[in-house]
Amino acid sequence: MQTTFAQLERLEPPNWWADMNLTSVQLLCYGENISDYEVSSKDITIVNVERTENPNYLFVNVNFEGLSAGEYSFKFKKKGSKSFTKAFALKERDANSKERESFNSSDLVYLIMPDRFANGDTSNDSMPSVTEKVNRAEQGGRHGGDLQGVINQLDYLEDLGVTALWSTPLLEDNDAKYSYHTYAQSDVYKIDPRYGTNEDYKRLATEMEQRDMKLIMDYVTNHWGAEHWLIKDLPEQSWIHQFEDNKGKDFPLDGYANSNYRMTTQYDPNASAIDIRYCEDGWFTSTMPDLNQSNPKTLTYLIQNAIWWIEYSGLDGFRVDTYSYNDKEGIANWTKAITDEYPNFNIVGEVWLHNQAQIAYWQKDSKIGALQNFNSHCPSVMDFTLHDAIGVMFKEDNASWNDGMIKAYDNFVNDFLYQDIDNLMVFAENHDTGRINEIYNGSLDHYKLAMTLVATTRGTPQIYYGSEIGMRGDKGKGDGAIRQDFPGGWATDANNAFTKDGRTEEQEAYHSFSKTLFNFRKETPALHTGELLHYLPENNVYVYFRSLEDQTVMVVLNNNPEEQTLDLSRFTEGIKNATTGKELFSQNTLNLDDPLTVKGKSPLVISLN
Amino acid sequence: MQTTFAQLERLEPPNWWADMNLTSVQLLCYGENISDYEVSSKDITIVNVERTENPNYLFVNVNFEGLSAGEYSFKFKKKGSKSFTKAFALKERDANSKERESFNSSDLVYLIMPDRFANGDTSNDSMPSVTEKVNRAEQGGRHGGDLQGVINQLDYLEDLGVTALWSTPLLEDNDAKYSYHTYAQSDVYKIDPRYGTNEDYKRLATEMEQRDMKLIMDYVTNHWGAEHWLIKDLPEQSWIHQFEDNKGKDFPLDGYANSNYRMTTQYDPNASAIDIRYCEDGWFTSTMPDLNQSNPKTLTYLIQNAIWWIEYSGLDGFRVDTYSYNDKEGIANWTKAITDEYPNFNIVGEVWLHNQAQIAYWQKDSKIGALQNFNSHCPSVMDFTLHDAIGVMFKEDNASWNDGMIKAYDNFVNDFLYQDIDNLMVFAENHDTGRINEIYNGSLDHYKLAMTLVATTRGTPQIYYGSEIGMRGDKGKGDGAIRQDFPGGWATDANNAFTKDGRTEEQEAYHSFSKTLFNFRKETPALHTGELLHYLPENNVYVYFRSLEDQTVMVVLNNNPEEQTLDLSRFTEGIKNATTGKELFSQNTLNLDDPLTVKGKSPLVISLN
Repeated sequence: MQTTFAQLERLEPPNWWADMNLTSVQLLCYGENISDYEVSSKDITIVNVERTENPNYLFVNVNFEGLSAGEYSFKFKKKGSKSFTKAFALKERDANSKERESFNSSDLVYLIMPDRFANGDTSNDSMPSVTEKVNRAEQGGRHGGDLQGVINQLDYLEDLGVTALWSTPLLEDNDAKYSYHTYAQSDVYKIDPRYGTNEDYKRLATEMEQRDMKLIMDYVTNHWGAEHWLIKDLPEQSWIHQFEDNKGKDFPLDGYANSNYRMTTQYDPNASAIDIRYCEDGWFTSTMPDLNQSNPKTLTYLIQNAIWWIEYSGLDGFRVDTYSYNDKEGIANWTKAITDEYPNFNIVGEVWLHNQAQIAYWQKDSKIGALQNFNSHCPSVMDFTLHDAIGVMFKEDNASWNDGMIKAYDNFVNDFLYQDIDNLMVFAENHDTGRINEIYNGSLDHYKLAMTLVATTRGTPQIYYGSEIGMRGDKGKGDGAIRQDFPGGWATDANNAFTKDGRTEEQEAYHSFSKTLFNFRKETPALHTGELLHYLPENNVYVYFRSLEDQTVMVVLNNNPEEQTLDLSRFTEGIKNATTGKELFSQNTLNLDDPLTVKGKSPLVISLN
Repeated sequence: MQTTFAQLERLEPPNWWADMNLTSVQLLCYGENISDYEVSSKDITIVNVERTENPNYLFVNVNFEGLSAGEYSFKFKKKGSKSFTKAFALKERDANSKERESFNSSDLVYLIMPDRFANGDTSNDSMPSVTEKVNRAEQGGRHGGDLQGVINQLDYLEDLGVTALWSTPLLEDNDAKYSYHTYAQSDVYKIDPRYGTNEDYKRLATEMEQRDMKLIMDYVTNHWGAEHWLIKDLPEQSWIHQFEDNKGKDFPLDGYANSNYRMTTQYDPNASAIDIRYCEDGWFTSTMPDLNQSNPKTLTYLIQNAIWWIEYSGLDGFRVDTYSYNDKEGIANWTKAITDEYPNFNIVGEVWLHNQAQIAYWQKDSKIGALQNFNSHCPSVMDFTLHDAIGVMFKEDNASWNDGMIKAYDNFVNDFLYQDIDNLMVFAENHDTGRINEIYNGSLDHYKLAMTLVATTRGTPQIYYGSEIGMRGDKGKGDGAIRQDFPGGWATDANNAFTKDGRTEEQEAYHSFSKTLFNFRKETPALHTGELLHYLPENNVYVYFRSLEDQTVMVVLNNNPEEQTLDLSRFTEGIKNATTGKELFSQNTLNLDDPLTVKGKSPLVISLN
């Protein structure tokens, strides 16, 4: 019965699952003049069939309600031609799929760029089906990192205290150059063959689950690559945003206009329509056509694809790229559809703004968004303002009204603007920003202060691969400079920083501090959901507490180059009835009636007793 | 019948009015051991009498409901002593007192420091009842400016296009030094005699009303001066905030501790109680005891005093000093009481913060404040973030992602956070900030750009005395440097900038530009309440429109040192069907189909036809 004709090149999603919330699915059928066919099915309810301006597409709206898992089929028939059938599986869902837990503030998220982390399978470094071949000598080339490399290093990550992994995108990106970042995708139902297979991705998820670790997919709703097969033969012109003025001009792609990147137009009541349009509808780059999420078919395709990956590979969360560049209502509908299917699923949106009210606007049920009747439905957003502060304040040895640790304090004073303060991603750096060890000019002391803050304040910390062994790289020299290979990820590497023996003394100093801090965080619930209580910095020393009913952690960040001695009587509200504390890094027991001494440019993390 | 004994030194308020909303009034009676007396009245309902820890006070709670205007009296009686009576007037209210209009975005507010503006009456330069005598040679001394001086210059102000006057405080400040700023008041029912009398103040209001100009009083709720008679013999210790740890120490006043000035503690959910206390309860300076508005008697005294001045002198608004340093609930209650009495009365709070959400928090009915169930009831707040931008952006000749005119644009993108965007005070400078002509190093071009923005964007513009004739002064050299005497305000001044003939060429250049701009604003309703539509700056040129249904003004601010030519097709949404425009400063008529040329560092203000 299962006969596939070349006439039907693609049917997407390639399968679905029984007992889903989303039972009304739109199947995209692609093939030369496929719209000439009628479609029928013995068991599956076909609600209707939609045709578009492009005869190579058929959109079949089906309903799987009441159907058990099993193999089904569609029959395609055209007058005067031989009919053909296409098998379609409704699979059994994994137990508890709907109610799956997701990443949250108990996690420490490790961000990798998979091409640059570890090459576990050299046989897939270059693959015939994709254009760009491996060239490790090229900063912007393919270096060969892959899923097997990640799987090989899960023990390393677990030992470090990591509990969740965010990998930048892994789906096929067939750009001829610079495809390593994989944000210009060409097939969103397929892992890029240079990283492995769909099965490898599922294996990564399974391996992680066995370690109680969580896998977060980096999902891109805003754009695809110019090489995407749907872009090359658009079902409708309106699947992407095109600028009439730029049609037929000598641009990389017809109708291209660049985004102005001014996300503020998304809520500015004074914004002009033309500026709003160039933000939302402009392209992120000339090689990334901007998807129109206001086209219902485009939106449906993106929703179904996202759910397909969650269900297929067993994901524990999404990070959504350029969240606030999307059609505002479109992306909200996309996010809602996913969280309707998986009520506990966490999604963190990249909302790269520099004002807490603006970031808070994009969080689910935000009262700031509600000022404009907007609800993004996105549970988590990124604390970019803290990132901004981390990049400068630890270099400010002299405190002033605005400089030094007050910048950390001032970031948290606006926490009331956020709807869910624990569901904020906090970070010092990511794959698009300067590397902190470069910014700090290789100062381990600075790294310790920054990481202690990230790992102990409210929210979900996210760290960036390699910083835990002191990796540097100057963003001023190009994105490739902050995305260098993890030493030891390639068999030929002289230095293997994945192992204690392989690490240099300096790498080990970074690593052992990180491991101590991250594992302490992992075991300390007060650092996951404890209340934050903080004190105005004095002499560039920032003191705060995280506390649950039966557990309190006191954190002291001395950003002053000089040793400081603190009279603890000021901190009675945080210390409560505790009389002693155990400091994490020194393992010293401290008497809280005594003045507390903290070395210059150093953190203390004290468990109170 | 009207016999006043020294036994009763003060009775406040000294009178009240019939037919007020606030008929329940608390009369403060002060005199040595006055609490030994019983009080009665033939016609006035005495609800009860309250005594405090200080026998020199009696608080008499009365109700005037149903009483007509007229002369009434109280009888004070003590066992074994002769009784005495005290007259008390219920005055007739001015017509339409309750519904009085107030300042709003149709106004241009001129801010003066009265000691430094004009000396209209040299006979009051030094007065026997107050300590500090005139000394014009001293930057921080009394210079002799007064109410008569202001009255003398009302024609000047009217001619300039000013419609409202905010004078810094005029009530008695009997500090021995630096009393000229008058924020450390010693008697809040009396104009400082060096400025004139209460009647002079009322005369100023009347003179202004006759010119359709509005008078705004600078009210201080947060603190009084150490010389205030109520401070020197506190009715209750709890009228001011005192810090137990600092009692009996060698401080200027018992229980003094300075404010930490961190207003963010007022809404920070993570703030420690001790930091909140030092913000709200700490003193602004050692010579200004911090009032406790949570003490009902203190609050009532402040409410009644404020209403008394509105009713007595016929005020058109308040500016409230250090609004966000007050007890949060206390100041909200104060503000509500005043706007309950005068529903259209405008009050602008000094909320000196650097984040729009934080400023918006303090505006009446704010949804940001509502996140914490807070409503300040304060109709207007100050656009300090715009002030911050004005201080730097016009010096940024080269536009970048963050520099130049984008700073103006970025200020307005957050307008949705404000509850009432028209009721924002916009300004380039005030008596506490650097003077813009100093910041701009005397560049008239820069002044023109800044003033055009202030006078044409949304909100109520506030300008600072003397800048309209190019006055400078470096805040780095002390507050006195930004509060120098207006040339011509003293009869002995060589240069009289109040008159055209008296102005230097440079002063006249500033003045004639200012007069043209301010009078145009006065006559152009679109600049008062018109919708704002703005465009992303390109090449450091910022373009925006203010429009009502039948009137549109286009503003172009070219912050680029080079001449710029704009293709106007981008601005179709703002231009609508207009074909020509008249430019204010050149009086040229422009064809809107043609490209528009604007000189380097120059503004255009174009009325569209």
